Amino acid sequence: MSEQRIQGLGVSAGTRIGRVHLYRPQAATDSLSRKQVAEADVPAELERLRAAKEQSLEQLQALVEKTKQSLGADKAVILEGQTSILADPTFFPEMEKRIQGQLVSAELAVDQVVEQIAGLFESLPQEYMRERAADVRDVGKRLRTNLGGNSGVSLADIQQEVVLVADDLTPSDTVQLDKTYILGIVTRTGGKTSHTAILAKSLGIPAVLGIGAALDTIEQGDLLLLDGNTGACVLHPLESTVEEARRRMEDEHHQSQALSVYANQPAVTRDGHQIEVVANIGTTLESRSSLAEGAEGIGLFRTEFLFMNATSMPTEEEQFAAYREVAENLQGHPVVIRTLDIGGDKELPYLELPKELNPFLGYRAIRLCLDRPEILLTQLRAILRASVHGQLKVMFPMISNLQEWRQAKALWLQAQEQLRAEGVAFADGIEVGMMVEIPSAALLADQFAKEVDFFSIGTNDLVQYTVAVDRMNEKVADLYDYFHPAVLRLIQMVIEAGHREGKWTGMCGGMAGDPQATPLLLGLGLDEWSMDAGSIAKIKHAVHGLHRADCVALAQRLLTLGTAPEIRTELQTYLQQPE
Amino acid sequence: MSEQRIQGLGVSAGTRIGRVHLYRPQAATDSLSRKQVAEADVPAELERLRAAKEQSLEQLQALVEKTKQSLGADKAVILEGQTSILADPTFFPEMEKRIQGQLVSAELAVDQVVEQIAGLFESLPQEYMRERAADVRDVGKRLRTNLGGNSGVSLADIQQEVVLVADDLTPSDTVQLDKTYILGIVTRTGGKTSHTAILAKSLGIPAVLGIGAALDTIEQGDLLLLDGNTGACVLHPLESTVEEARRRMEDEHHQSQALSVYANQPAVTRDGHQIEVVANIGTTLESRSSLAEGAEGIGLFRTEFLFMNATSMPTEEEQFAAYREVAENLQGHPVVIRTLDIGGDKELPYLELPKELNPFLGYRAIRLCLDRPEILLTQLRAILRASVHGQLKVMFPMISNLQEWRQAKALWLQAQEQLRAEGVAFADGIEVGMMVEIPSAALLADQFAKEVDFFSIGTNDLVQYTVAVDRMNEKVADLYDYFHPAVLRLIQMVIEAGHREGKWTGMCGGMAGDPQATPLLLGLGLDEWSMDAGSIAKIKHAVHGLHRADCVALAQRLLTLGTAPEIRTELQTYLQQPE
Repeated sequence: MSEQRIQGLGVSAGTRIGRVHLYRPQAATDSLSRKQVAEADVPAELERLRAAKEQSLEQLQALVEKTKQSLGADKAVILEGQTSILADPTFFPEMEKRIQGQLVSAELAVDQVVEQIAGLFESLPQEYMRERAADVRDVGKRLRTNLGGNSGVSLADIQQEVVLVADDLTPSDTVQLDKTYILGIVTRTGGKTSHTAILAKSLGIPAVLGIGAALDTIEQGDLLLLDGNTGACVLHPLESTVEEARRRMEDEHHQSQALSVYANQPAVTRDGHQIEVVANIGTTLESRSSLAEGAEGIGLFRTEFLFMNATSMPTEEEQFAAYREVAENLQGHPVVIRTLDIGGDKELPYLELPKELNPFLGYRAIRLCLDRPEILLTQLRAILRASVHGQLKVMFPMISNLQEWRQAKALWLQAQEQLRAEGVAFADGIEVGMMVEIPSAALLADQFAKEVDFFSIGTNDLVQYTVAVDRMNEKVADLYDYFHPAVLRLIQMVIEAGHREGKWTGMCGGMAGDPQATPLLLGLGLDEWSMDAGSIAKIKHAVHGLHRADCVALAQRLLTLGTAPEIRTELQTYLQQPE
Repeated sequence: MSEQRIQGLGVSAGTRIGRVHLYRPQAATDSLSRKQVAEADVPAELERLRAAKEQSLEQLQALVEKTKQSLGADKAVILEGQTSILADPTFFPEMEKRIQGQLVSAELAVDQVVEQIAGLFESLPQEYMRERAADVRDVGKRLRTNLGGNSGVSLADIQQEVVLVADDLTPSDTVQLDKTYILGIVTRTGGKTSHTAILAKSLGIPAVLGIGAALDTIEQGDLLLLDGNTGACVLHPLESTVEEARRRMEDEHHQSQALSVYANQPAVTRDGHQIEVVANIGTTLESRSSLAEGAEGIGLFRTEFLFMNATSMPTEEEQFAAYREVAENLQGHPVVIRTLDIGGDKELPYLELPKELNPFLGYRAIRLCLDRPEILLTQLRAILRASVHGQLKVMFPMISNLQEWRQAKALWLQAQEQLRAEGVAFADGIEVGMMVEIPSAALLADQFAKEVDFFSIGTNDLVQYTVAVDRMNEKVADLYDYFHPAVLRLIQMVIEAGHREGKWTGMCGGMAGDPQATPLLLGLGLDEWSMDAGSIAKIKHAVHGLHRADCVALAQRLLTLGTAPEIRTELQTYLQQPE
């Protein structure tokens, strides 16, 4: 049997090889379905449906609890969403109506309504709404299983090492995955923002999604190799391919072992220059483990989770509790809290934001907060109150002109005055800075530098606006490149403007966690690198291998180049030269 | 009776005062409607509907012809769209089905189907789709009128000077407007991109839209004053208000008379520096009048109209004919043709473009053309062939990096090679330039300047990306400002980079047509100003009043300021100082 190469989308890194476990939960129950029922059976059918609903609710609630403990509250939100689907007025009553009006079986009623609602979600233009279709189908599958009176095939039953292959995994499939046995995941559908991608990454299981029709050639028990970095799979790999993969797996293992040594060391260059390496976090939970992963503080604490995982605006008290927890977990290390960056594509139902044609160029973040100052004022009061429990700093997102900065700063002073008047304590000399993620802010950094305490460059948005590319749009994503020479010039402007006024500059976009960019950023004079905690050891290791003086010269040379590929090639050459 | 001030949206400039003509076409026929018909009457009802459809089609075709002659082919497109609504398979057959199945009258069937389809359009997020609801309602109104056997109230019947007040004007209302009698237009609904706004501006009739419930206080024959610049209206104006308005109208008249003197003079500063003032056009029709309006050439010929007013990709032959016509109309003056800037929010049904979350950051213009090079190649061949009939130049839109520029340039050379091989003649030394409308292009202008023949700064998009604001989004539109200091810095970078390599820089965005910006742009060294032909006299007049050397000093001073309001204030002070 000759080996067959299959290309998918690598969404969770790592190489794995193993026997295929084909997971096809839906097919098993289809033949058992009755279609029509007699009028006399309608009450019994309604009762069966009601019982299945109760059972599903109980199961979901148990799963939510389990997930909260194993993966954290924010991952459980996906399953809590399914609980609310069960409670939705378009869901059950519609099924009951069909049983009564069209004399269909409970099974068929479930199938029809689930397909109708899932289809509706799938027709929506927003990817995150389309992803909800998976939740609806997942709830439907659970109902079908519970109607059948048996618990179906459970992934939790897998007790040997396998590569899991499926059309798609539902959120409740995914949270049942046990890393001990599931070596890797390969699916027919799914993108970078799908539940499967998010949870696989969070569980540390390598995954390749979206292999499409190639899945039909894979059979139960086949040997399958997957590379979650590149998205490459090999079915029936030759012995030589397997050997090469094993070497790669060993390398990956050694590399991660070798790197972990650096996690808790300071990031010092060969010529003795130390930089600050800190973590980006999005939940209070992540703040618990960040010090252990080598973070010297938090460079970006996204506060959106407090607002998005809620049905109404979180109170000052709720926010205070979260900020205090993070401050305390960081044991005196700095924590930069970014004020609410919501709106545009990140919707809050209770805010009733307008639909926008170009949400990335719209009403969001500081724009929304200055328009509704009570939201920002509440958040700033909560941050100030928490400031006595650690070392907090605050920064404002999406600043595009000086007036916005000054208005935000005025609200900061107003919050202080209010607390002072109320006799509430807060720390002295809290640093107040801004995100630099809009070209106009970078271009005007010299003016901002006179007024801010620090800059934090958000490369993800900055690149997006500088080259006019929505990086989530695959038709143009190849134009999105943080090595674009125009982006480097903006970064240089910001760092130099800051230093001229004695202010530090950090970076909290994806570029900071890319070791290929490290010599360049070091050479440009960046002071603080903020990234996902998983990248910290890698970046600290990179810094240990560099001479700062060399990097300064390198950066100057790179700034004269005209294209990103030239810059990348120069960087690769530089990094490959013998030490 | 005391005067009453009403605020609306000024969409077509000019002050007017006159007696109100209340136009309420719908109300007249409503009471005549029958609701249900007997089964025996169904064939007669279907025949009435068919006859009304025929009559409507004939009327629309006549209107299309009339509009083509009076307003140009591109304005007639709106009415041609109505013809296709009449032919739509969801339209008539649906009405017939209702008459047959529900025994409703033809009138009610029309009303129901029109409301259903118009409501569907109105629920869509795209403004230009919502505007189509007006077309559907317009067609419905025409059908209703023709069903009633009378031609209804026609705006064409108005034979005395009036201010037209209406809930809304349909496209076919608007094209019946006679400027001789309709002094101004005031409506309850409608925005800046509505048909009424576009046609009122094109007809030169001052208009204030969207006054809302205030309309209910206006009665037939009331005296009403409107200011299409500010959107302010005054009902029952006092004698003093009327006098003031008359003075303003006289000023407006004198101003436009005085300015027209400058239209056909060269734009020379007091210290003898001449700049080039050229026109933006979007149709071949506009090229006929541009020289008479003072244009010294065309700085931006948008070619989208050729593609948008068609049901399939225009052929090389069709494009050649259009480019040749413009080249000839300009009698040897330069014409800068911009290659296709389509995609994103400007859809072409026959291209089947993907739906995008952020179309302004998406797959459009040069991105699309490099992805489908046959489109660009055809256009470039047509331009080359037309180049022997005048002085053509070509520029590429939305260039964000050097690689795109080089690919586009390679296609230009390929088109030349093809024509050379075919023995087809084209002009020598055609200048090839690029739009600078993405921050990365402006930031990298020094690199581009070595390869292009000229730059044309598109401020509309450049500002949009630089400050990350969709200017069509009213929630954030106040952040959109071409006097933002970051924008000025980018403009300076481009002009200086160009001059260092001996290349000229033009500007074809809204800023070029704003006389307040003239001293600044003159001081920054801009070479060519391109604008709507109606602004040319105004800008030439502004240039005549300026000293170039003063403006250079002024621009340097403005570049040190931190905010747009400071820059605007300085400019106003400068412009108000005695000469």
